[in-house]
Amino acid sequence: MEELKLREREAGLVPEAFCIAPAAVAGSLSQDIDTPSLVLDLDAFEDNLRTMQVLAERHGVALRPHAKAHRCPEIALRQVALGAAGICCQKVAEAVPFVQAGLRDIHISNEIVGEPKLRLLAQLARKAHITVCVDHPTALKALSAAMAGHGASVGVLVDVDVGQKRCGVQTPDEAVALAGLAQSLPGVGFTGIQAYHGGLQHKRSLDQRRKSCDKATRLIRRYLDALERAGIACPVVTGGGTGTAVFDVASQVYTEIQSGTYAFMDTDYGSIDWGEALAFRHSLFLLGTVMSTPAADRAIMDFGLKSTSAESGAPQPVGWPGLRCVAVHDEHSILQADDSKNLPVLGDKIRLIPGHCDPTFNLHDSVVAVRGDRVEAIWAISARGLSR
Amino acid sequence: MEELKLREREAGLVPEAFCIAPAAVAGSLSQDIDTPSLVLDLDAFEDNLRTMQVLAERHGVALRPHAKAHRCPEIALRQVALGAAGICCQKVAEAVPFVQAGLRDIHISNEIVGEPKLRLLAQLARKAHITVCVDHPTALKALSAAMAGHGASVGVLVDVDVGQKRCGVQTPDEAVALAGLAQSLPGVGFTGIQAYHGGLQHKRSLDQRRKSCDKATRLIRRYLDALERAGIACPVVTGGGTGTAVFDVASQVYTEIQSGTYAFMDTDYGSIDWGEALAFRHSLFLLGTVMSTPAADRAIMDFGLKSTSAESGAPQPVGWPGLRCVAVHDEHSILQADDSKNLPVLGDKIRLIPGHCDPTFNLHDSVVAVRGDRVEAIWAISARGLSR
Repeated sequence: MEELKLREREAGLVPEAFCIAPAAVAGSLSQDIDTPSLVLDLDAFEDNLRTMQVLAERHGVALRPHAKAHRCPEIALRQVALGAAGICCQKVAEAVPFVQAGLRDIHISNEIVGEPKLRLLAQLARKAHITVCVDHPTALKALSAAMAGHGASVGVLVDVDVGQKRCGVQTPDEAVALAGLAQSLPGVGFTGIQAYHGGLQHKRSLDQRRKSCDKATRLIRRYLDALERAGIACPVVTGGGTGTAVFDVASQVYTEIQSGTYAFMDTDYGSIDWGEALAFRHSLFLLGTVMSTPAADRAIMDFGLKSTSAESGAPQPVGWPGLRCVAVHDEHSILQADDSKNLPVLGDKIRLIPGHCDPTFNLHDSVVAVRGDRVEAIWAISARGLSR
Repeated sequence: MEELKLREREAGLVPEAFCIAPAAVAGSLSQDIDTPSLVLDLDAFEDNLRTMQVLAERHGVALRPHAKAHRCPEIALRQVALGAAGICCQKVAEAVPFVQAGLRDIHISNEIVGEPKLRLLAQLARKAHITVCVDHPTALKALSAAMAGHGASVGVLVDVDVGQKRCGVQTPDEAVALAGLAQSLPGVGFTGIQAYHGGLQHKRSLDQRRKSCDKATRLIRRYLDALERAGIACPVVTGGGTGTAVFDVASQVYTEIQSGTYAFMDTDYGSIDWGEALAFRHSLFLLGTVMSTPAADRAIMDFGLKSTSAESGAPQPVGWPGLRCVAVHDEHSILQADDSKNLPVLGDKIRLIPGHCDPTFNLHDSVVAVRGDRVEAIWAISARGLSR
């Protein structure tokens, strides 16, 4: 193989790097964006940022938006500029481009296991204020040894399971033991608890979400009481998400909320009952082109699973009444119209709301930020693919 | 925002680029690969390449493996070195790193709509032998104008719908008209037809797939007869996939097959009935680490939707009897054991078979090629994210 490439290179057959032009340039028309592309409507996005920031401030709760939703430093910088206390990341490597972009207060809302990850964490912790989650004494001891060994220190939040049945300690006694251990070890300090319940966020009815939040709140109080009885101060209680934010901020237990999707929305969050509570707008769209119109019952789009995540359902078109995305293949999606008169034609560009924004952002290297019919900027999704 | 960054940079607070170490280096132990990572077992992979190549050659049919499955030039070079006639790509941008790597015969098995894509296609077509699909006279005329305008030429395959109900012309008359149009226009030449039916590939029973292939074959013959009656030579009939390869090569209609997954397999293809027909081995694995063991009923892994595609089902562990992956979240997956004695412990590394290999490859920047317990190479998935 190497020989083959060498031969071709000598014969001048291996070309210079081709120019894959960017999907858009600042100042150009939104309709000229090449597809498939991820498009952010800045007016709606900025509205969403303000709405959540105002909600948090009204209740005296910090907003620490989750950057796992977008993996884009330009977005995090705007959240912090509006008053966010810092950001969350879910992975150590994911945090790197955010620290490089100037973010200085990052909670890694996850357990960290493995020597390469701990080494990178120590590098980050020497540049920024970093907190991480723990739910196991073995992992906490390894964390402490790595931080102390590299001359770094991180804050530790004990992850408590409030019903999600994922990570987190199962009892207040375990939490107290871990908090005490964190206080006794070098390179780490006990900062508080994390109580996140992802499953609650997507319950359809507002009332269901309220009741589930009340139940989680009662559980969190048991943890706080146990820590208090043990004489351990717990300055931070972090958790909450977009679907439950209105209850989380009023719960009197959370000191900060971790919402992420509120800035963008998706069909999954868009379909739950919001009552009068909060009004977030769809700001994130997948832009696709009709590449085939083989029959009167369907139009085929030029995007698929490599441009939009589909495990939470297909993306859905906006501005095309009666048109539905009924299938997402690897590189195609199929649109059907309730009336063939409503089918788009070859070359039409269509905006769709992604099914699930977090994994969809992670498929793209950049997002095209538009205001009205003009492209304002192209933002790098710098943490795309950084999942270690 | 800019001001903030500038201030921090002046104060020396913005760090140099952090070193995110690679997941592995050549020569290191497989067990030391950092996670989540995509791992390719070279012995199984090479067996699979040989099995399919031998099958195609035995029937005198060309093998043109689909690079959309892996997006990795190192893999394509090995397929061609073993005798493949060239490769397929699904997108124009996707083809760029393959041409840069020295591949010189690429069929873009898809319709291409939009001026930026046609411009890039012309660049490629001046360096390599490129064919593309058409299913609409308007798109064919735009293709011809773009190629002629840029001093390039491409071969054209009329895409015919043999039951998938996606792209492709619906009748032999349309195919004849498009073929005739291709013969009359500059910058394009009629090369043959593409008859691909993705839906057939995944039918569970071998007999179902055989019957469906027979039906598709009869339909293809109708197209070939119509072209013959019109006096239009049709040198190429391309299509087929991993699930139907054994029937496609024997069909007497296909001159080449486009299988992709055969090199890797996934849980989706792994679960269909293969009879005695072909024996492909699982060569592609997601490697994850147990990052939390909060309760006796589950272990939490450090990968999720950003490392493995889940719309075709969760990845499944190998070498851990009774252990199942029951949920894939954004950055976590949940393993359950039929007996808590079979649960892995904190820090254990586990190999899993991805649910669907194509979109899973597209989530990773590289794949770690291993032989036995040693890392042999790290291959860039250079076309990752190139979906325009």
